[in-house]
Parts: sequence; C-alpha cells; structure tokens
Amino acid sequence: MQKLIECVPNFSEGRRVAVIQKIASAARRVRGAKVLDVEWDRSHNRSLITIVGAPEPVFKAVYEAIKTATSLIDMNKHKGEHPRIGATDVVPFVPVSGASIKECVVLSNKLGRKVARDLKIPVYLYEASAIKADRVNLADVRKGEYEGLKNEIETNPHRKPDYGPSKLHPTAGAVVIGARKYLVAFNVNLDTHDIAVAKKIASRIREKNGGLVGVKALGFKVGGYAQISMNLVDYQKTNFDTAFRAIEKEAKKFKVGIKSSEIYGMIPLSSLVKAVATTFKAKDFGEEQVLEKRLYE
Amino acid sequence: MQKLIECVPNFSEGRRVAVIQKIASAARRVRGAKVLDVEWDRSHNRSLITIVGAPEPVFKAVYEAIKTATSLIDMNKHKGEHPRIGATDVVPFVPVSGASIKECVVLSNKLGRKVARDLKIPVYLYEASAIKADRVNLADVRKGEYEGLKNEIETNPHRKPDYGPSKLHPTAGAVVIGARKYLVAFNVNLDTHDIAVAKKIASRIREKNGGLVGVKALGFKVGGYAQISMNLVDYQKTNFDTAFRAIEKEAKKFKVGIKSSEIYGMIPLSSLVKAVATTFKAKDFGEEQVLEKRLYE
Repeated sequence: MQKLIECVPNFSEGRRVAVIQKIASAARRVRGAKVLDVEWDRSHNRSLITIVGAPEPVFKAVYEAIKTATSLIDMNKHKGEHPRIGATDVVPFVPVSGASIKECVVLSNKLGRKVARDLKIPVYLYEASAIKADRVNLADVRKGEYEGLKNEIETNPHRKPDYGPSKLHPTAGAVVIGARKYLVAFNVNLDTHDIAVAKKIASRIREKNGGLVGVKALGFKVGGYAQISMNLVDYQKTNFDTAFRAIEKEAKKFKVGIKSSEIYGMIPLSSLVKAVATTFKAKDFGEEQVLEKRLYE
Repeated sequence: MQKLIECVPNFSEGRRVAVIQKIASAARRVRGAKVLDVEWDRSHNRSLITIVGAPEPVFKAVYEAIKTATSLIDMNKHKGEHPRIGATDVVPFVPVSGASIKECVVLSNKLGRKVARDLKIPVYLYEASAIKADRVNLADVRKGEYEGLKNEIETNPHRKPDYGPSKLHPTAGAVVIGARKYLVAFNVNLDTHDIAVAKKIASRIREKNGGLVGVKALGFKVGGYAQISMNLVDYQKTNFDTAFRAIEKEAKKFKVGIKSSEIYGMIPLSSLVKAVATTFKAKDFGEEQVLEKRLYE
C-alpha cells in the first residue's frame, strides 16, 4: 500500500495574497505532492497550506514552501492576533495511510536538520517529535512569541533550539516542527434541549476523566439541541463509531436518544474503513478494497 | 465532483498472454483511464480488463482495447467453456461516483455506434441499455453463441443487431454493450451451524420474495457456519448496512446472532460513505470529506 502523509505548514502571512500564492506554488511544483487546500486569515495574519502525498514528495514540497516563505516574510514587520515565532511558524507532519507516527517523527527531524543547515533557522521539535518534555505543547514552545524569543534564545539555555543556531533568523525567526496523529472532529447531537445531559456525557467519555483513549469532549448547545463536540486525537484507538456507541449507551441512561452526528472536516479513508469493519464485524475489510483508493496507486 | 465510471470488457482470449497484454496496453496508453485489473482463465479461454476513470478517457481506452482485440482474436479458432459471441464479447459500463446509470447508457450507445461504424462489428445493447425486452439478459443475447449466431443474424429478424451490419464480423463476431449498476457482493455469517436458518433468512430478504430492493440472497454453509450470500445490485437503494440490519433482525427471531460479515471484492467509496452516514445519522457526510478522494481531483 502506498504511504500517505499530510503536512500542514502555518505561515505568518494572511494579508498579502500574492505572497501566500507564491509559497503554495513552490509546494505545488513538487511532483507527487498535492496541495489540497490553502487558507488564510487577515486578522490572524496567518495562512496554512495542506499538502498530501508520499513522504518524500511531501517533505520536498514543505521544504520549498518554507524556503519561499523565508525569502518573502519579514517577522520584524509582522503583526497579527495569533501567537507566532517565525515566518514559517509551525510544521506538523501527520500519518494518513500506511505510514506510522514514527515515520513522521523521522521526517520532522530530517526537515529540522535541513532547515537549520540550509536556511540558518533555529528549529524546535514539538508533539511526538519533542525531545524535551516542556516542548510537547506548542503553546509552551511559542511562549514570548517572536519578540520575546529574540533575546531569550540567546541568553536562556532552556530556550536553546533542537537544531540550528541559538539566534533567531534576522527575518524568518524560528520554526516549530513535529509529528502528530490525525485529528478527527466528530460531533453528536442529542435529542434533547438539556445541555446538562451533553456536559455530563462529555465528562464521562473524555480520556482525562478515565473515559475513552484519545477523546477530548465538551458539551454545547447548538441549534437548540445538546451537542457533544469531540476531538478524536487517536482514531486508531478510539474511532468515531466507538465514540458514537459510547454516547448512545450513556444517553440511554438519561432516556435520551441521538438525533444526528457530524464528521467535521476531512477524514482519512482508514478511519471510515475501520468504522465499517468494526460496526459490521467485517474484520478482513481493507482500504485496498475501495475502488477509488486504487486510482492513484 | 469528478465523474468516475468503470468498464469491464470481456475478451475471448484466456491462453495467449501476449495477446491479452497487448489489449490491456492499448487501454493503458489512454491518458486518464486507469487499468485496475487484468484477469484471464485458460479453461474459459477468456479475459477481462477493469478500466476506471472519467467517462471520456474510459470510453477511449475501451475502444482502443476492442480495436486491438478485433485485430488479434479470430473467433473461428476460438474454443472455450464460457458462452461467447465475439472477440470482444461483452462490455458493461458501470457508474461509480458522480455519474448516473443514464450517462452510462448514453456512453454505451456512443460506443456501439463507433464499433459498428469503424470496426464493422454488429452490436447488441443489453441490461439498462437494452432497447428490446428480450435483450436485457446477457444469456438471451448470447443464445446459440458465435457459431449459432453466424447464420441466425442473417436470417432471423429477431436477431438483427441494434447497431451495425446484420452479418458477423469475419473474425471478431459480434459484441454486447450496455450499462448496469455497480454490484456489491456482501456475505453475512450467522452464529449457527444450521443452514436452514440461513436459507430462511435469505428467502425473506431477497427482492424476488418481496424483501429488500435489489437484493439477491442465498443460504450456504461455509466453514461450518450458515452464511447468507448476497449480491446487492442497487446499493443506492439497499446498501450493505441495511442488508446487515435486516438479517440481524431476522436472525433474532431464530435466537441467532451474527458472527461476521464480508465485503467481497471492490466497493465504491460512495457505498462506504452512505453506510456510515446512515448508521451514524451523519446525513451531511459526503465523499469529498474523505482525504484520499481529493488526491486525484
């Protein structure tokens, strides 16, 4: 099976559309990498590019995008609401199909070394790639932002980057690179207006309270109905069908049914296949049986 | 959404592998059409090529394959167990995604006219493309086979082809072209050794007996367990999840559970997406949310 990964580099440019397009074009020129999406936000002054493909082309496309962003964005002139430390601010590698999180960790290290060596940008490793415990969370790495890090990186040994110089790049700042699992956003709407029920169920199923592995859940009121809004941060362990059944079971205790559910945004084929295999006890069912999957082999 | 169709032309050659490869290569050379599979059987002396892509490239690839088969296969020398009337024996067009059966009917007619005009082969339209009621079933069209049709096509007005001459092509014979829906093969294994239960459930759910639309079902014993083996000939109306739930309900009446199920062969992404949307009440969930789907747009 072809290995498929996703990378979603975030850039500190959300206003000059020509600059964003140049960065995206640099990625598009790499054969075998597909730019699925380019988004930007004026008030955050920030953009993100979704690149999908086999590991090597995605690596090349991301590097080309970073190189272009380095030449076109000056952090000394950048203002925006969103926290950031560099022209290329954060670069997550995500396994989609046939690839492991470990392979994405290896790739993030390879990119980190190359960015440090060829572009002279200090690199911090975060999430699954983090070497230091206090660099797992992005917010911790970005503390003080570009302006604060400028001095700290040179004077505070705790802020020394994982790769590259202990000095910000004069215009591009620093970059955070790492690997994380694919996040599935899944909401379940209950057949009740009582938000308290949603909050109670959310509290019971979330991992933090001893519920389902990799499930973050909150209760909301949406369109008049109680909703359990979830991030499934490890769908290989807890997929949306498992979350659905757990909520269904808990809701029954309140004599409440499920009105509808919502898979939000994009989902890897493997999550769908896994949900079908589990729900219908079709344990041998695999991605390679999906006709469309075989079209780009 | 990109339109995707499948075409599986059957050729009367299952022994000379070089010939089969030349036919497949002719299809492969057409840009935008993907040859997913080439299969052949020596005793049937027959091969089939699975071509998938947008309607126009698939049309071209199938035509090139037929043209090549016409030049390389001589029906006067063909012997095989499987019924056949021509070098290219039967050509079904199947909608996979974003395309309707009507579009496949239009395409089959376009191919029929071109094959009749440019290759001088008589063409019969079958299945959804059939103009005459007694040509819907393939077996009826192939009655008498190549040898019998040779005389009949010239003398019996009921055997007059839908396109082309009322005379077999001297080496390539005739061809059957048409459109049919995608067939999903789905088996459900019961948690019992009693084949009678499988037979009873199969009889209750099959369309013929007033059961589920588009469901053909038989009871078997497989690996010691009772199995309901199904062909879902219209998964847009009755998908595998609906069949599963119907069987589950019927089995309960016999105090029998479901042991496992099996999706056999390839399945279109739309069938998976539909099953997930129905089962988890996620009515807005669509194919375009599947990451892999967007890779070949």
